[in-house]
Amino acid sequence: MILIKLGGSVITDKSQYRTFNKTLVARLCREVKESGEDVIIVHGAGSFGHILAKENHLNDGFEDDSQIPALAQVCFDVRELNSMVIKELIEVGIPAVSIPTGSCFMMNDRKLKIDNEDILRGFVNKGIMPVMFGDVVLDRKLGFAICSGDQIMELLAKIFKPKRVIFVSDIDGLYDRDPKKYLNASLYRIVDKNIISKIKSETSVADVTGGVYSKMQTMLRMCANGRDCILMNGTAEGRLLSLLKGEEIICTRAESD
Amino acid sequence: MILIKLGGSVITDKSQYRTFNKTLVARLCREVKESGEDVIIVHGAGSFGHILAKENHLNDGFEDDSQIPALAQVCFDVRELNSMVIKELIEVGIPAVSIPTGSCFMMNDRKLKIDNEDILRGFVNKGIMPVMFGDVVLDRKLGFAICSGDQIMELLAKIFKPKRVIFVSDIDGLYDRDPKKYLNASLYRIVDKNIISKIKSETSVADVTGGVYSKMQTMLRMCANGRDCILMNGTAEGRLLSLLKGEEIICTRAESD
Repeated sequence: MILIKLGGSVITDKSQYRTFNKTLVARLCREVKESGEDVIIVHGAGSFGHILAKENHLNDGFEDDSQIPALAQVCFDVRELNSMVIKELIEVGIPAVSIPTGSCFMMNDRKLKIDNEDILRGFVNKGIMPVMFGDVVLDRKLGFAICSGDQIMELLAKIFKPKRVIFVSDIDGLYDRDPKKYLNASLYRIVDKNIISKIKSETSVADVTGGVYSKMQTMLRMCANGRDCILMNGTAEGRLLSLLKGEEIICTRAESD
Repeated sequence: MILIKLGGSVITDKSQYRTFNKTLVARLCREVKESGEDVIIVHGAGSFGHILAKENHLNDGFEDDSQIPALAQVCFDVRELNSMVIKELIEVGIPAVSIPTGSCFMMNDRKLKIDNEDILRGFVNKGIMPVMFGDVVLDRKLGFAICSGDQIMELLAKIFKPKRVIFVSDIDGLYDRDPKKYLNASLYRIVDKNIISKIKSETSVADVTGGVYSKMQTMLRMCANGRDCILMNGTAEGRLLSLLKGEEIICTRAESD
């Protein structure tokens, strides 16, 4: 089993409210199907979630009732995004069912808890892919908060113990500085704890990584026990399929000690 | 709190695959909003569920792998229907969140079990309406089966103890014979166990009731302890609002002994 996260930056245009990259998602779904591998997909919320969530401080938890309509709207929007992803999966012949994170599970102080694995396992055992996604989730301490796709990845990895974990992003991997600003930025092919510490001490993290730093930390937590854990660019055609077929691709691989 | 079931025959055209009665649903949502009452809505699957489910015997449980793509398609379709309903609720100013039955709960030999009420209660406590619906649901004995909106109504009534339960259908209530066939069919204003037994012994149930008989049995189970339990016609404009305001309307009321 292989666990794949389709990042919000790949499946949506993050700068435009509710813009779905249908052609790109359709291609990625075809690559998954063509590989013949047993896969579970998680996806981010992208512009279906972050824009309204930020405007209404949904990640700060409950402040006042003015957040409630926004919460319902974000839940609605990310479920529509999920429906678009599932539609593409079904169209390439992968039976998939939505498992909306905030409808099924709760958090406690921002920590997602999957207290019942039976439904997830039940679908997988029938050859149906359960698809979870970044969502607003009820929180026992904060009222509600945002649960990221990355957090879901960590939990699903604990449940399904995949041999491989792939984060599909819109960049080739982790660079030593922001590749959108510096032409001579160079890609790390392998990242371990030492490199991560070095990056952190040498530069402003926000400046260097374009948001990939915290994802790398997640990946380092997930790559223990020899699990292959990869950050790659989904906008490059055929790269996901190559990776799934076991070929070498341009990417950053997380390595535990 | 009032529990309302919007029947599949009201919110969809049951004879046409995936046909949503948007104008009618929008009006019913406005009537709920205008009443100012505290409401939870459950809805049926209508033509988004029954047609494919029947063709692929999804209610007979797992037979072979050929059912799996159909299962995924039905789950997809009913979630899209739910999304359409939620959209209308949000548009009239009712914050609502989808709780897809088969993503959140399981059945055992066709009996739905809501083993964790925290999420449902959590949304209600924040003034957000959780919306469940008829769905394909994993079944510990059968593999999977169909869970009806009526079954969800019974469970939610146990959890939320509503003062009133309303089944919104496309007929005025229970008739002594099929009103689509017999011009002189007369409407029962009140139904109790004796009337139900009489109907059953005197005629072919399928012939008489147009499918309302089993709904009436559900209603009789739900109307104990003085709870008001009503079957009414949602296609008649303003009737739901009148009922919610406490006015007398054309309907059938279930009465316990």
